Amino acid sequence: MFRKVLIANRGEIALRVARTCREMGVGTVAVYSTEDADSAVVRAADEKVRIGPAAAKRSYLSAPAIIEAARRTGADAIHPGYGFLSEDPDFAEICRAEGIVFIGPPPGVIADLGDKVQARRLMTRAGLPILAGSVEPLRSAEEARAVAQEVGYPVILKAAAGGGGRGMRVVTEADSFTAAYRETTGAAQALFGDARVYVERYLPDARHVEIQVLADGHGNAVHLGARDCSVQRRHQKLLEESPPPRLGADVVDRMGRLAADAARSVGYTGAGTFEFLVSPAGEFFFIEVNCRIQVEHPVTEMVTGIDLVREQLRIAAGERLALRQEDVRLHGTAVEARVNAEDPGRQFAPAPGVLSEFVPPGGPFVRVDTHGFAGYRVPAAYDSLLAKVVVWAPDREQALARMDRALQEFRVAGPGVHTTAGFLREVLHDEEFRAGRHTTAIVERILREDRTDTAA
Amino acid sequence: MFRKVLIANRGEIALRVARTCREMGVGTVAVYSTEDADSAVVRAADEKVRIGPAAAKRSYLSAPAIIEAARRTGADAIHPGYGFLSEDPDFAEICRAEGIVFIGPPPGVIADLGDKVQARRLMTRAGLPILAGSVEPLRSAEEARAVAQEVGYPVILKAAAGGGGRGMRVVTEADSFTAAYRETTGAAQALFGDARVYVERYLPDARHVEIQVLADGHGNAVHLGARDCSVQRRHQKLLEESPPPRLGADVVDRMGRLAADAARSVGYTGAGTFEFLVSPAGEFFFIEVNCRIQVEHPVTEMVTGIDLVREQLRIAAGERLALRQEDVRLHGTAVEARVNAEDPGRQFAPAPGVLSEFVPPGGPFVRVDTHGFAGYRVPAAYDSLLAKVVVWAPDREQALARMDRALQEFRVAGPGVHTTAGFLREVLHDEEFRAGRHTTAIVERILREDRTDTAA
Repeated sequence: MFRKVLIANRGEIALRVARTCREMGVGTVAVYSTEDADSAVVRAADEKVRIGPAAAKRSYLSAPAIIEAARRTGADAIHPGYGFLSEDPDFAEICRAEGIVFIGPPPGVIADLGDKVQARRLMTRAGLPILAGSVEPLRSAEEARAVAQEVGYPVILKAAAGGGGRGMRVVTEADSFTAAYRETTGAAQALFGDARVYVERYLPDARHVEIQVLADGHGNAVHLGARDCSVQRRHQKLLEESPPPRLGADVVDRMGRLAADAARSVGYTGAGTFEFLVSPAGEFFFIEVNCRIQVEHPVTEMVTGIDLVREQLRIAAGERLALRQEDVRLHGTAVEARVNAEDPGRQFAPAPGVLSEFVPPGGPFVRVDTHGFAGYRVPAAYDSLLAKVVVWAPDREQALARMDRALQEFRVAGPGVHTTAGFLREVLHDEEFRAGRHTTAIVERILREDRTDTAA
Repeated sequence: MFRKVLIANRGEIALRVARTCREMGVGTVAVYSTEDADSAVVRAADEKVRIGPAAAKRSYLSAPAIIEAARRTGADAIHPGYGFLSEDPDFAEICRAEGIVFIGPPPGVIADLGDKVQARRLMTRAGLPILAGSVEPLRSAEEARAVAQEVGYPVILKAAAGGGGRGMRVVTEADSFTAAYRETTGAAQALFGDARVYVERYLPDARHVEIQVLADGHGNAVHLGARDCSVQRRHQKLLEESPPPRLGADVVDRMGRLAADAARSVGYTGAGTFEFLVSPAGEFFFIEVNCRIQVEHPVTEMVTGIDLVREQLRIAAGERLALRQEDVRLHGTAVEARVNAEDPGRQFAPAPGVLSEFVPPGGPFVRVDTHGFAGYRVPAAYDSLLAKVVVWAPDREQALARMDRALQEFRVAGPGVHTTAGFLREVLHDEEFRAGRHTTAIVERILREDRTDTAA
């Protein structure tokens, strides 16, 4: 096992990683920007290194600064968390060149799966069903339009270098295609430095379901069931659950086995997520692989009893998976709600500030992952995720009631500070959601209804 | 189900009960003394009623004040928590007379099991093995001494009306018996208003193991496995775990089935705990029944997935147990640490005060039950329990590492405030404890070693 892990991240996930390291007897190095000098992970880690100013480009996204911190502290591995450098094949490659273990898949695998067109190709070959659309990156609006014509509208244009819900656009009719193509390629260039886009059939009533996979460096891979992440706002997940409601265990197992086989076939190692869209008829289609720990990984931990960060460390250290597929047992239902420092009343604009009061929920079957505490100043510079409230119960109905209770008791206050907790409770009370019949359109529908209510 | 439950308690257990009520859609009434006006349960409950001044005798122990609050708010049931009126048969009787459901066993059962001599008699009849000792309450020092002689020293003198670790005294030799008898009867009179004591064989190297039972009003009873509560200081539990280390599942199941049968045989209803001593050779002996929810109930919840307060409410409302013995599955290991506002450096003297900082631990498989928050004033008037940190893991070794991590990250500070967190970590690092070879003597031994270390 590693002697010392540098955590190349911030916020709740950095603390999350530090917790498991400590439990495993592995030393921790927190790196931080000037903005995060008094953060929870800086307090919790064994060592801390300031790597730069608030701007992520010069701190959490600066490979040289992070490598230098690892060298200086003698860290033998780097955990990238999610976001930032977690899916950057160049960073993984630099780590390798420096003799530091990057806790994630090999650089070549990250590069292949990060290119969404290449990922579609590899996964088709591995036997995963994909939505009709481009097989090769598109070279012109005409070519793209021809694919769209063949697939049939609506289609979705996606940046080949995108992922995590960024850089996509739905096109419902041929007339607006050319303009949409121009805008998407422009945005892709601006966001990812890569203008390539691809076209996929768009499923308007789909659910977002993803499979958690663990694969070791010895050819073993298992899946840990599925998460439903259909509650999204602009492709950003707000609430996740496992198992997905109203989806047969047989379907989940089929998706899971396909995903685990696919992971093996591309030489994937570590924890990874295979994202799918599921149609109302129950057909599923691969969309992308996330080569990192997910924000929503705790729901899988709650239903399996497996510490995913521990498994990441074990696999990265060369150990074998300790479990076979038949050892993975799923118990009950887990739900995660992302409490963001945002104002739902102002289009979810970030609402940071100093937390004068911060009392997270607790009690039976409630887990909270947060870097917040009374007195903490939520910075404006980063992601607005403040806390993940995770609950478990024997069944979905009790889990939803428990989450509602937990969100209700969460006390967060401070000048200018707002959170999404109240809005998440609206989702929990939504009839369609309670029945498990919602799709990725649910949040926009609730917001529309809220506006109508206000107008009435 | 009940419409509204009055919670006749304070601190973490009152909040615990309110949480489950809310999840079940049951209204809650918090009662509070002037000392607790700004407490967490008062903030969390639907209604609140001030019932008296700080002195428990005139608030949390005042049956008339509580009944009046229930009448005024229209509560149809009372949950007594633990301590205070929870095992008072008269209070249960008054509730019944007032047409309010007392969430606990029938008054007659509480009375019988509260009389420890009577409990010994009933449990012997029900087939539970008991330690050699008095069968009838003792009427004189001579009679007591004769029993002790027959049993053989060491013996323990216990108040017939005692329980929960109070009013007991070990006697190691005949010479000191008469004086010890006099003192114990005097203390019993002072503590419980009942001078009767009994004599039992004393097991110096025993472990304290208890069985959680659920019994409904329809003749069904199940056990939910065992908790090891051997880490005690002056008969007060500090750290509990389930399952007990180094005790065969077959032994636990035998104890469990005997306890469930005994519960059925005496007409027990609700959640109850059968306490046993287990000798180094693995023999077990019944000591007492606790007719209430226990402080340490969360460890059972974590290994079974069952919300015990929910079951209490369901049973009290006349529902049937939803599970049979074969449905009860135990997963992994759970450990609870009681973080008390006490100063281990000053013989665990209460160390209350205002919490200027209070950041409970969190993250994977950590549950915290606490009424504390930053800014809360821990009152000196009551029990010093500030928080229960509960962890779960697939095995004991990981659970202990997780607890150590959780206690290490718990930040509590305030002028004059001390906690037992550091001492509990000493226990976790103790070799005998890690090996699961400890007995109820462990805390005194560690304290002795600490003193020697300090002297050296």
